[in-house]
Amino acid sequence: MTFSPKGFKFAVARAGIKKPAVADSALIRADMALIYSEADAVAAAMFTTNRVKAAPVRLDMERIVSGRARAVIVNSGNANACTGKKGMRDAREMTALLAANLDVPERLCYVCSTGVIAVPLPMERIRPAVKELAASLGKSAPEDAARAVMTTDTFPKLASRKIKMGGKDGTILGFCKGAGMIRPDMATMLCFLMTDIAVEKRALKSALKEAVEYSFNRITVEGDMSTNDTVVAMANGMLGNAPVTKSSRLYGPFLKALSGVTDELSRMIVRDGEGATKLMEIKVEGAITLADAKRAAMAVSNSVLVKTAIYGGDPNVGRIMAALGYSGARMKEEKTDIFVGKVPVIRKGVSTGRQEEARKEFEKKDLSITIRLNSGGGAARVLTCDLTEEFVRLNAEYTT
Amino acid sequence: MTFSPKGFKFAVARAGIKKPAVADSALIRADMALIYSEADAVAAAMFTTNRVKAAPVRLDMERIVSGRARAVIVNSGNANACTGKKGMRDAREMTALLAANLDVPERLCYVCSTGVIAVPLPMERIRPAVKELAASLGKSAPEDAARAVMTTDTFPKLASRKIKMGGKDGTILGFCKGAGMIRPDMATMLCFLMTDIAVEKRALKSALKEAVEYSFNRITVEGDMSTNDTVVAMANGMLGNAPVTKSSRLYGPFLKALSGVTDELSRMIVRDGEGATKLMEIKVEGAITLADAKRAAMAVSNSVLVKTAIYGGDPNVGRIMAALGYSGARMKEEKTDIFVGKVPVIRKGVSTGRQEEARKEFEKKDLSITIRLNSGGGAARVLTCDLTEEFVRLNAEYTT
Repeated sequence: MTFSPKGFKFAVARAGIKKPAVADSALIRADMALIYSEADAVAAAMFTTNRVKAAPVRLDMERIVSGRARAVIVNSGNANACTGKKGMRDAREMTALLAANLDVPERLCYVCSTGVIAVPLPMERIRPAVKELAASLGKSAPEDAARAVMTTDTFPKLASRKIKMGGKDGTILGFCKGAGMIRPDMATMLCFLMTDIAVEKRALKSALKEAVEYSFNRITVEGDMSTNDTVVAMANGMLGNAPVTKSSRLYGPFLKALSGVTDELSRMIVRDGEGATKLMEIKVEGAITLADAKRAAMAVSNSVLVKTAIYGGDPNVGRIMAALGYSGARMKEEKTDIFVGKVPVIRKGVSTGRQEEARKEFEKKDLSITIRLNSGGGAARVLTCDLTEEFVRLNAEYTT
Repeated sequence: MTFSPKGFKFAVARAGIKKPAVADSALIRADMALIYSEADAVAAAMFTTNRVKAAPVRLDMERIVSGRARAVIVNSGNANACTGKKGMRDAREMTALLAANLDVPERLCYVCSTGVIAVPLPMERIRPAVKELAASLGKSAPEDAARAVMTTDTFPKLASRKIKMGGKDGTILGFCKGAGMIRPDMATMLCFLMTDIAVEKRALKSALKEAVEYSFNRITVEGDMSTNDTVVAMANGMLGNAPVTKSSRLYGPFLKALSGVTDELSRMIVRDGEGATKLMEIKVEGAITLADAKRAAMAVSNSVLVKTAIYGGDPNVGRIMAALGYSGARMKEEKTDIFVGKVPVIRKGVSTGRQEEARKEFEKKDLSITIRLNSGGGAARVLTCDLTEEFVRLNAEYTT
């Protein structure tokens, strides 16, 4: 079950962003969501590193400097990216309208958009939906909000944790969307993390950064990076605990719980990878540095040839070796060992000839590939999925 | 028609490398080829930059230092990569056997392998085939050799040029294989260039490098780099011209003809891209440097989302913008213009709304995308193809 932290309320609305409203608006799916905190929350956020950044990303980057937030408004169906000055105006107008309707300062309102790039927002349909969101605040559950932000996702993605904070039960809740355009440096995804635990600004920023590094920055679906990725964390302090700082005893447990939520959410994204039939974990050990390990794990995870081989249940381990070789990671072929599950398939750079056992592992729904470079102490783990005909079909038809 | 340079002879043989020989060996396709020059030839070569290098690549890298060659033996069906010490022994044995049978020095014999990685060569079937190659020298045409080196290629790839060299007609002939595991820094491919024009060693090396840079290093199918890529050029001088040097008047025309051959061959590789239905040319202009232009063009060309959109005939130009943004190339969204064919789709970073015209361009078999970064003088052009369900099917089943 999903736990909800104190003092956060949700709402959803139907703007018909991708499809103009029809007579019976109940036929349209909810495509806007509102997250609202009753009290001013400490906030931290991370954004796409793509040089092309959507208008809402640029706006939120300005505002997050304050480290405070009250509300986040989200729309799916349109990314408001590559939309120029109109895009910036639209993003600002969404938060201004929201602020007026909620009676909170505009600078504490944030906006996230996800969907097709380079198409202007249909503001004439968004404006009334923003009012509706404010008017229906509290009438929706987190799961409704998680559904409203979905694009090609096939299921809503939520995770939560309860933790003891000085005798009180604190709650962390997160939900996210993402299934395609997923790669490290933040997948095409939006993620919202909410807690009633009081956390000091720098501690929240630091915990968020670490949690994201080992979750959303370690997943990849097809290696494309989006223009809209945003993770927002809000801590409204309504639990009434002494605020968690970086040096307090409770920072560790808080980070662990937050990381638990982001890890669970990131796994859901890969599990829901467009057209994916299998989840695979690529572990690299013994790299010279952490950076080498990440590079190697990412190259294998993003290799179209490795991903199709895994889809086909075909233990073509040569493709893994080839990807390691071009990854940029420092490695020596003759020192490399590779295991599929527990089956050694490459030993000192040479095939062990155990293809048939490896095939059984490749046929599993969840598989793990362990690569030992035997050159140092750098290690990294990346989660990815296979590449299927269905992925191609979905992406050949996305905007149409 | 294909022109053949003086003094080069060819042979093919059936070793049944992927399938053990059956009673009627005529049913097996030729999977070995021999290229032989009657006279010692000046030679230059370029190899994969993958850290994982196949045994034949390592052997040839040692031998090419001499700048001389007489013969190249090639097998398809097995890459002899990730095969350790046995792999090196096998590669050496292939050239030793060839040298003995042809009665030429072993150090002038080269070997190339292509096919599945991490499987030992079936030497018991290769040994008799090497003898057969030597015995049947001259009985095959270049096209037969081009067919014998194919793996997933659907057609043999040959190109040739005739050029006047001081009153004499010189000939350059090339053939290559490659359809998958194709990306810059040399596609998964083997390419053999032969000429009867006398060319001095340094001039041949320099011309080869330049011809490869603007042909094989500017194509990509799915972005995976192989362990076996090799381009070998042999100039046997049998035309009897004064050897071409870097400073001679004929260096320019020679380079132009050689580049014409490599360009034609590289286009054939993309045209034959596994499962591809469309050829597309990505041109980047106005980048700050050539390196930025290459990075931008490569990111767009390798984007799985761009490639599937083009397959679907879907003018999803936002995906092009997103790929530019993460390419690593320095660029400013608000300065970027994009044209599909001649249709402007992005102007100063913003959609022009001309999707319907763009759709017509996206539906063409051959399309060009021009990206103007309007920031400097760097330009690059990359050829690539779309990504289809058929690609996934082919690659899910390759070794089985």
